[in-house]
Amino acid sequence: METQSLTIQIKKVEKSKINEVDFNNLAFGKNYADHMMYCDYKDGKWHTPQIVPYGPMEFHPSTKVFHYGQAVFEGMKAFKDDHGTVHLFRPEQNFERINKSSKRLAIPEFPKDLFFESLEALIKLDYNWVKPGQGNSLYIRPFVIATEEGVAAAPSDSYRFMIITCPSQAYYNKPVKVLFAEKFSRSANGGVGYAKAAGNYGAQFYPTNLAKSKGYDQVIWTDANTHDYLEEAGTMNIFFRIGDKLLTAPTSDRILDGVTRKSVIQLAKDKGIEVEIAPVEVKRIKDAAKVGELKEIFGTGTAATIAKVTAFEHAGEEFPLPEVDKEYSVLMKDSLQDIQYNRVEDKNNWLHPVKP
Amino acid sequence: METQSLTIQIKKVEKSKINEVDFNNLAFGKNYADHMMYCDYKDGKWHTPQIVPYGPMEFHPSTKVFHYGQAVFEGMKAFKDDHGTVHLFRPEQNFERINKSSKRLAIPEFPKDLFFESLEALIKLDYNWVKPGQGNSLYIRPFVIATEEGVAAAPSDSYRFMIITCPSQAYYNKPVKVLFAEKFSRSANGGVGYAKAAGNYGAQFYPTNLAKSKGYDQVIWTDANTHDYLEEAGTMNIFFRIGDKLLTAPTSDRILDGVTRKSVIQLAKDKGIEVEIAPVEVKRIKDAAKVGELKEIFGTGTAATIAKVTAFEHAGEEFPLPEVDKEYSVLMKDSLQDIQYNRVEDKNNWLHPVKP
Repeated sequence: METQSLTIQIKKVEKSKINEVDFNNLAFGKNYADHMMYCDYKDGKWHTPQIVPYGPMEFHPSTKVFHYGQAVFEGMKAFKDDHGTVHLFRPEQNFERINKSSKRLAIPEFPKDLFFESLEALIKLDYNWVKPGQGNSLYIRPFVIATEEGVAAAPSDSYRFMIITCPSQAYYNKPVKVLFAEKFSRSANGGVGYAKAAGNYGAQFYPTNLAKSKGYDQVIWTDANTHDYLEEAGTMNIFFRIGDKLLTAPTSDRILDGVTRKSVIQLAKDKGIEVEIAPVEVKRIKDAAKVGELKEIFGTGTAATIAKVTAFEHAGEEFPLPEVDKEYSVLMKDSLQDIQYNRVEDKNNWLHPVKP
Repeated sequence: METQSLTIQIKKVEKSKINEVDFNNLAFGKNYADHMMYCDYKDGKWHTPQIVPYGPMEFHPSTKVFHYGQAVFEGMKAFKDDHGTVHLFRPEQNFERINKSSKRLAIPEFPKDLFFESLEALIKLDYNWVKPGQGNSLYIRPFVIATEEGVAAAPSDSYRFMIITCPSQAYYNKPVKVLFAEKFSRSANGGVGYAKAAGNYGAQFYPTNLAKSKGYDQVIWTDANTHDYLEEAGTMNIFFRIGDKLLTAPTSDRILDGVTRKSVIQLAKDKGIEVEIAPVEVKRIKDAAKVGELKEIFGTGTAATIAKVTAFEHAGEEFPLPEVDKEYSVLMKDSLQDIQYNRVEDKNNWLHPVKP
């Protein structure tokens, strides 16, 4: 990947939309900040990044992303601390992962300098869209789509890298009930499950709707081969607490290498909590639930942060989770947020400040 | 699915582009006929189909199809016979399949009357874009995309169903060499492999590029669990001729129920050729190749019709296919085209004429 030094072109809005937004009643992903970034790939190279007012763009109906799902994305957040400074949380992880996803989808990788320069320029322009205070953040959505016009089933020869941002409160604002998958699957060995590929998400909607019709909020995906092992929740990795130990599945070509997942593993270790990273058998979790040793299940993800699970269903049987004092889910969420809002020492160097 | 009777709204082009197209040198999927159809789903129902000049449309960057691959498509063809009449080939199969795909992707099904009325109206308007003569056709691409603006990972509340068309000669104009997958996979049990979901295609580009760098045109996907069984080629189903028998994998939740596949099975049976529909073990194909019993491999698909395979590779070993008299691939292609161009009796009622 050739390093390029191209000036970012910026066209500012004439008038901000910020006063039209009710920041106390945000529906996730419905309000976008004033500006967006896009950068086109054609003739074999990435061109000058453009920052422009957020708004619609023209696409031909034959544009490849509509037909072949050649698209990847990232989810990341910026937090404003009590001194008014904005911090990105581990953005180099998202940068590395979007290129890992792109590679698997035959999309050209995006240069690191362009990623950080344009991301920081965008944050600076929309600094006021990052609200301080617990639970508030600016959700940042980098994504890449195939833009060649033409329905031949082959990789696109042009792409658009974009970053859009939206103010966010908590993504999941209440605990969730989950269903362990017994028939449907999220990903195959040798497939694209480890990538944030667009198609991985649309494929989950129907089984998730079926789960919702049974009263469950999310599906915990199991391995496609046997359905005996718990993998991830589609938009979250998943942790189980048995006794005082945390258990989570190892990453693989089927499981996303979540940034919140790896942060929670590190925080747990920092606090002396044992973390077992190993295949999680459904039977083990059910057996632990039956004898009262299963204390907690929670999901981890950038959008959700930590989502507490109150019950799971498998094979027609529902297992409520117990009420627990000193929940790990609360401890992890508090610890993460203390770092994200810059209220404690950032021992692991996870914050990336962006000055106004 | 409520049946609706809505008038189609038509806006014709002021001047046709047809004279700008060199019909003797068509790059597949690069030239589009004058008109396209779109029909929007919102507020819980499909609205009036619109036929308008082919051209770009506006989409917000947060449109769900860009992020979550909630999109499905179909491929079908119209042929013009020597009397100047256009025939669709088994269009009811494509209609049924796009709704089967849509259901799996949590997209509302499209009404049958709207599908056929708007498809026929579109063909009538662009009748001159269907050229007579062997190999010529109008490739028809119905597709559905999620159009809600908003990056929450949940099914869209609005969709656009579209039909675009492009004049086509043969899609694959030369025989292909293929590679049997040993590491990468196309689909999982309980996944979306049987659906024409956009994401299934983008996910194949990278492994196919790797195959191309080794001198192979296509990958024949194997089961994700063991890689011991041959499944399909991603844009084609696949047939093997051992001795005088044809062998192809059964459809499953991992394998597309191809219209050309089922037509070839029927034609073979009509001609007294034995067809074994059973899991196809890699070992069986290699063993048959080694003793000279493997006579042919060919792919079947709407775009390709029949694509002859001249060699396959597995585990570092290349197996060339022999030269055969009276090839089944030629027999099947000729038989199919005789029906498609209305040169023989249409015993199975596969043609759907559209009068000008």
